[in-house]
Amino acid sequence: MPQLRTALLQSSGRLGDVAENLKVLEQAAERAAGAGAGLLISPEMFLTGYAIGEDVPRLAEASDGMSARAIGEIARRHGIAVLYGYPERDGEAVYNSAQLIGPDGASLANYRKTHLFGCFEQDSFVPGDVPVVQAELGGLTVGILICYDVEFPENVRAHALAGTDFLVVPTAQMHPFQFVAEQLVPVRAFESQMYVAYVNRTGPEGEFEFVGLSCLASPDGVTRTRAGRGEEIVFGEVDPELLAASRENNPYLRDRRPGLYASLV
Amino acid sequence: MPQLRTALLQSSGRLGDVAENLKVLEQAAERAAGAGAGLLISPEMFLTGYAIGEDVPRLAEASDGMSARAIGEIARRHGIAVLYGYPERDGEAVYNSAQLIGPDGASLANYRKTHLFGCFEQDSFVPGDVPVVQAELGGLTVGILICYDVEFPENVRAHALAGTDFLVVPTAQMHPFQFVAEQLVPVRAFESQMYVAYVNRTGPEGEFEFVGLSCLASPDGVTRTRAGRGEEIVFGEVDPELLAASRENNPYLRDRRPGLYASLV
Repeated sequence: MPQLRTALLQSSGRLGDVAENLKVLEQAAERAAGAGAGLLISPEMFLTGYAIGEDVPRLAEASDGMSARAIGEIARRHGIAVLYGYPERDGEAVYNSAQLIGPDGASLANYRKTHLFGCFEQDSFVPGDVPVVQAELGGLTVGILICYDVEFPENVRAHALAGTDFLVVPTAQMHPFQFVAEQLVPVRAFESQMYVAYVNRTGPEGEFEFVGLSCLASPDGVTRTRAGRGEEIVFGEVDPELLAASRENNPYLRDRRPGLYASLV
Repeated sequence: MPQLRTALLQSSGRLGDVAENLKVLEQAAERAAGAGAGLLISPEMFLTGYAIGEDVPRLAEASDGMSARAIGEIARRHGIAVLYGYPERDGEAVYNSAQLIGPDGASLANYRKTHLFGCFEQDSFVPGDVPVVQAELGGLTVGILICYDVEFPENVRAHALAGTDFLVVPTAQMHPFQFVAEQLVPVRAFESQMYVAYVNRTGPEGEFEFVGLSCLASPDGVTRTRAGRGEEIVFGEVDPELLAASRENNPYLRDRRPGLYASLV
């Protein structure tokens, strides 16, 4: 099975400017596809910016809304799958969501963040109630979590048990929590035997200071790709053969004893 | 509340020689108590050595057997709590266990490893069935896991939910798995908001090569103490005030959503 070359778009775009952010996304899709990538991942809330405060309700869109269609066009035009974060409107409810669009422009999956972080998110969004959302891409089972979700080992384990090969995690990771980007994400890949891509915003935005440090970690615990603190696109390979060999050698998922974990639920 | 100064005895003792290992433990207890420590932690299977192969049944002892009484004397004589790993006999069954002896010489807790690693352990021991074993020491709730157990986030989470403040983990961590000592253990401390002490064997032993790198990690993800690869005693402080402040700032245990974790059990 071929490797899936993946582009991690570490960028904050322009706060509150959807049209501009669609342009940034299109330029990144063009560049990523030109570099042979089959998937482009952008950060949490990339469509609108993260620190949009009281503009959340105004900027929220349906999962099949105007921006979804525009991103479908971008994906189709460049023949590359695109994951983007956005505030999702569904009736009265607004979710912190991430949608995966296939290279034909059609939606493959839409995930609503289940673990909301801090006052801004808890005041602005309704938490999702579906822990595992997956899609097939390039022969891999791709799963989606958003930022704070990945800090809970239970969420990643649920993906492993459901067969996720490659977990994609748009994030808005702030100072002083770079420990999560640097240490926790590779441990998640190792302990649950999957690839994990963690794609962050960067620089100051409202009251927040995002730390960059986007990465791709493999199931052997190796950080394959690591961005710096600024705006950039970094690339990494998701290798199904490495994944299969790692799972063969590493018995974590076989040696679990679910009968002893009752207190967790 | 006072800090608990803790001594991590990174040593392999002498393979198969219980009398010699009791001497090493007594010397370490004397030195640790002299340095102001209230707890001495030795590695997995310290009493007998790890690579004892077919000698496991012969060297296994009851939890109140001769060596337990000898270690009770050591603890009492030096006024220090002692945790030691040993093969435990209970009727026909032999467990891979760790016992905590209080500074008065009485047993505080005895834990039987629930997650056995690899062929040697799975052929030689019966797995324990009690996931959380705790004791009170110096105002802290101390929990015990052994080596491979700590690599499963579920086991550490179960301790966090049961109120463990300080998780003590005797281990026999082998090459090439030093990622566990270096990266995974501090992440466990961070994600489940507790102190974790990880105390390893060192050097070659039978077919194994132990990597040392014993450490004490605090709930803010900081590695407070880190040993090298050779035999040594390292010291670290478990600070109840730091723990309380970290839990106040870090909402992981409050933000869990147990209703979404059903697939884990």
